[in-house]
This record gives sequence, structure tokens and C-alpha cells, in this order.
Amino acid sequence: MVDQKKRVTVQEVGLRDGLQSISSIMPTSEKKRWIDAEYAAGVRYMEVASFVPAKLLPQMADAEQVIAHALTYPDLTVTALVPNLKGAEKALAAGVHRIVAPISVSAAHSSANVRKTPLEMVDEFRRIRELRDSAGKSGAVTLIAGLSTVFGCTYQGEVPVGDVRDIVLRVLDAGCDIVALADTTGHATPGQVDAFLATLKPLAPQKLSVAHFHDTRGLALANTIVALKHGIHEFDATLAGLGGCPHAPGASGNVAIEDLVFMLESMGYDTGIDVQKLLACRAILKEALPGETLFGSLGRAGLPEGYPITQSEMKKVIA
Amino acid sequence: MVDQKKRVTVQEVGLRDGLQSISSIMPTSEKKRWIDAEYAAGVRYMEVASFVPAKLLPQMADAEQVIAHALTYPDLTVTALVPNLKGAEKALAAGVHRIVAPISVSAAHSSANVRKTPLEMVDEFRRIRELRDSAGKSGAVTLIAGLSTVFGCTYQGEVPVGDVRDIVLRVLDAGCDIVALADTTGHATPGQVDAFLATLKPLAPQKLSVAHFHDTRGLALANTIVALKHGIHEFDATLAGLGGCPHAPGASGNVAIEDLVFMLESMGYDTGIDVQKLLACRAILKEALPGETLFGSLGRAGLPEGYPITQSEMKKVIA
Repeated sequence: MVDQKKRVTVQEVGLRDGLQSISSIMPTSEKKRWIDAEYAAGVRYMEVASFVPAKLLPQMADAEQVIAHALTYPDLTVTALVPNLKGAEKALAAGVHRIVAPISVSAAHSSANVRKTPLEMVDEFRRIRELRDSAGKSGAVTLIAGLSTVFGCTYQGEVPVGDVRDIVLRVLDAGCDIVALADTTGHATPGQVDAFLATLKPLAPQKLSVAHFHDTRGLALANTIVALKHGIHEFDATLAGLGGCPHAPGASGNVAIEDLVFMLESMGYDTGIDVQKLLACRAILKEALPGETLFGSLGRAGLPEGYPITQSEMKKVIA
Repeated sequence: MVDQKKRVTVQEVGLRDGLQSISSIMPTSEKKRWIDAEYAAGVRYMEVASFVPAKLLPQMADAEQVIAHALTYPDLTVTALVPNLKGAEKALAAGVHRIVAPISVSAAHSSANVRKTPLEMVDEFRRIRELRDSAGKSGAVTLIAGLSTVFGCTYQGEVPVGDVRDIVLRVLDAGCDIVALADTTGHATPGQVDAFLATLKPLAPQKLSVAHFHDTRGLALANTIVALKHGIHEFDATLAGLGGCPHAPGASGNVAIEDLVFMLESMGYDTGIDVQKLLACRAILKEALPGETLFGSLGRAGLPEGYPITQSEMKKVIA
């Protein structure tokens, strides 16, 4: 289980998935401060905005400015979410490194989220890929198919793995670079993640590399351990578990990035992130989003005495 | 990872570890109600009391009455904790099926908890075993060495696995039937559990069968998955994660039994417990312990739509 020095990527998606789910609107200056602080903590992958009309998501109205700021860090991989071709045009113009387009496996969720069927979204995804290629950016911009409601759906309930398999095959055919599997509504359990990945991972062993877990039922970290076993090596998370789920009142949102990093480092994975500095970033949210609930176990309990335990120190402990 | 129909034992320890950690004193009648409700939900292992002087732990003053009530269920395995020989005498007289004696691996914790060194506690453990045997109860009463602060200690910090190994060998020599490894203060991480069990489990593959995780840093369920991999097949937990840790303000206590059962069942393990009925038991704590914080993710978010997903239904979903 311990895989010494194996690199695992942790992407901060709070600036997009976190902020879009709460009613507060974070000022652009605070978003920049958040990016700066997490960059200083070692985070090198961030999904910082989505290109959704400002009248629908005023929280994302400053997408271009936030992206421009993130791009001032030459080794920060900057991702934006786009729901359609128009958003992709803007994202390409803004100069992001990666574009993620959400494709719900659940028809009910897809309709509610983007007013399209899953197959219509696959078609849109193909047009986005063609747009990128015709702009001569096939090498420069990575296209991620962000499959949502993979493990269940608040509207539909169970989502058969056969439906997920079908969409995975279609987005591969449409030319995606990466497939991300998202537990949008926090339904995934370790047994299910194990069974689903056993079926899905062989469809695209290299491209199916990202998981996005919500901690609604406290299982995000357990699910992560199972996903690691199947070779998933990039995980989304948000500072202080920011997000919540509008369809599950009182439920927490994404897995807290500080908890995820702490666990991964304890298992000998190299995230490149300093968990103490990451924990300190919570103060920014506390100040900039007064009244919003902050989640996360480490934020509540703190690091254990004597942390950091480096791998060489760990070896002494377990020797 | 999914191990169809493999039995896993989940023991409710809230009546002991939960209630001893909070200031409220639960009336005996409410303790009986709690036992009744969890029995009805399918729980067949409960640690219901400890034999500690009532002036030290008034929460446990009714130990005999609570045990007598639990023993009215013929197929309920009833466990009591004893800190010393005197407590063991009382537990044997009360007729429990299992006695657990806590032995801290950390000298600092041992001193604070029982005012004895770890080796003095091993000696006491041996005397308890001799007492049981001389009472002719070696076949009837199971003796559990409850190793505490195995994965870290709030006083001492890191606990070397060599120290744990030493105590495991000594309690085996003293004649224990079962060794339980307890993360008393919520320090364990999945990497550590993996490394420690790789060292410890071969010392007593059959007897080293129980883990007791606290959820202080949200890792109890992740640690459980790692422990299952090493063949641990009994887990302690408390209703609503009751407990807290006096040495970590704001930290949650034991892993919530309802979250643990939900996860195990989702992985195809048979706990024999109905998670919906178990969730309903939280109402007893809400009524009987007003003002106490109840933890647990399922208690907050609820079961997913369409639950229960039986294993045959799960097979359809993943088919």
C-alpha cells in the first residue's frame, strides 16, 4: 500500500467547485490571495474558474482576471471549466492549460445542470475538441472530460456502470485527453469505486487518471485509497472542503484538500505540498467568506504532535 | 477489495468509551434503551461498562445493572473494561463474556491513565488471566489485551512500532486470547496502519484481530480499509461517534458505528446490522444527552436515495 515517493497530483478546485456552490461572492482580490497562498504551499494544479454566464453564476464573473493572475506563475497548471463551446472559446482566449467540460452520466442531472442530454454534451465536447485543434492548440491545451454523477445521482438515484462505460467510450472517441470521474453528489462507496474502476479503468488505462470525490458521507478518503489501488493518480479537492451540495442540505462538499494531502503524504506519496502551509490558507476563507461553514478534520483537530513526520522519520518510527 | 459475504464484527463501545469521555451521566434506563435499540438493529457485540471506581468515573457507577440487562439477550456478546484485578473480579462476578484490560504502549499515557507503567499493566493483566483461570472460566470468558496509544500519543508523540511489538509479545506470553490495537488519540494514518500491521500481525495472526480507530483526523474509515487488508475482522465504534478526546478539544471521538457499518456493507462485508435501524438509534442519544455533540457523516447527510442497496442489487448496478 505504501508506495514510496510515487507522485500524486492534487488539484485545488475550490475556486470553481467550491465558490460556485455557495451564495457568497468572493472578491477577485481574495481569490488572487487564495491562489498565491496555495501556490506558496506547493499546489501546482488549480481549477480556478468556470465560463458560465455571469447572470447564472455571478461568483465566476471575474474568470478572465483570476485566470490571468494564476498564469503569472509559470509552473502552475491552470484549468477552467466550460459548459459549452462558447465557454471553451473564452477559456482558450484566456490562455488556460486545461479545459474541463462536465458531462453528466445521469440524464436527469445533465438536464438540470446544462439543459442537454449526456449525448448532446458529448457532441458539444467533440466540437470543443475540434475548436481547440483548429486553433492549433492540440498540443498546448489539455481537454478533460469531467464525467459527473458517475457513482450516483440525487435525481436519478443509482447510475449503472454500463451507462458510465458508454460515456467513457464516447468521450474517448470524441478525442479527450483525460477522463475524470466525479462523485458529484457524494454517493460513492469504497466497494462501488472498486467495482466501477475494475470495469472502467481498462477502457483507458492512461487517460482515466483523475477522481473527484465529495465527502458527503465521510467516505472520500476511503474512496481515494481504493482509487489509488487502481492507478488513479490525480485527485480534486477544495480548501476546507468548501462547496456543500445544494441537493443535500447540511452535507459537506468536496473532500478537504488539507485532509487529502495529509493522508497521501502519510502513505508515502509525494504531493509536493506542505500541509502546514496549506492549513494556514484556511484563514483566507475565514476572512473572505464570513458565515460560510468550513469543513475538514485537520482544520478542527490540528496536526498531530511532532508533525511533519518525513518519510525518513517515518522509517525510524516503523523500523 | 470486495470480499463477498465475509463476516466482519462491529462492536458498539459507546456505552463505555463514549460515555466515559463526556461529562453528562446517562441514566441507567437510557443505557438499557440504547442496548435494546442496537440489539434490535442487529448489533451482537457491545462493550457496555467499565469497572472503575465510581468516584473516578460516575458515568460507570451502574456497571452491574447495565451488564445484567445486556445479558438478558442470549446471543449478545457482552464486554466490560477493567483497569485492574479488582475490576476483573467484579466483571467476572457480573458474568460478562469478555473482559478487556487497557495496556498503554506509551509510558506517559499509561501513567496518566492507570498510574502504572506498561510493564506493570502487563503484570496486572497476567494476574487477571490467572484469576479467570482459577475461577474455572478460562473457556467461558475471553480476555482481551486492549493496547492503547498504539499509533501515537498526545503526551509522548510518536510511538515506535518496536514498543508495540514488545507489548504484543508480552501480552501473548501472559495468556491473552485477543489483542486489540487502539488508536486512542486519533493519530493513526493509513500508511502507518499498513506498516504497523505488516510488522505486528505475523506475531499473532489469529489473536491480533481487533482494531479500535478514532476519527480525530477523519481517517478512521480509511484506516479500516487498510486494516481489513491485513485480516483484522473486528472493529470498535460508537453510536454518533460519541466520545471526543479530552486531549484534543473539538476533535471527534470514536468512529461512528453507523458510518462504519454503511461502508463495510457497501464493500460486501456482512455485519449483520441494519444501518437504517442503527441510524434511528441516534435519537436516543439526542434525547438522553442533550447538549452533547453528535458526530457522524450519515447522521448529517442521510443515506443515499434508494438505500438499502443489497449485494444482489449492487451486482445489477455494476453488471
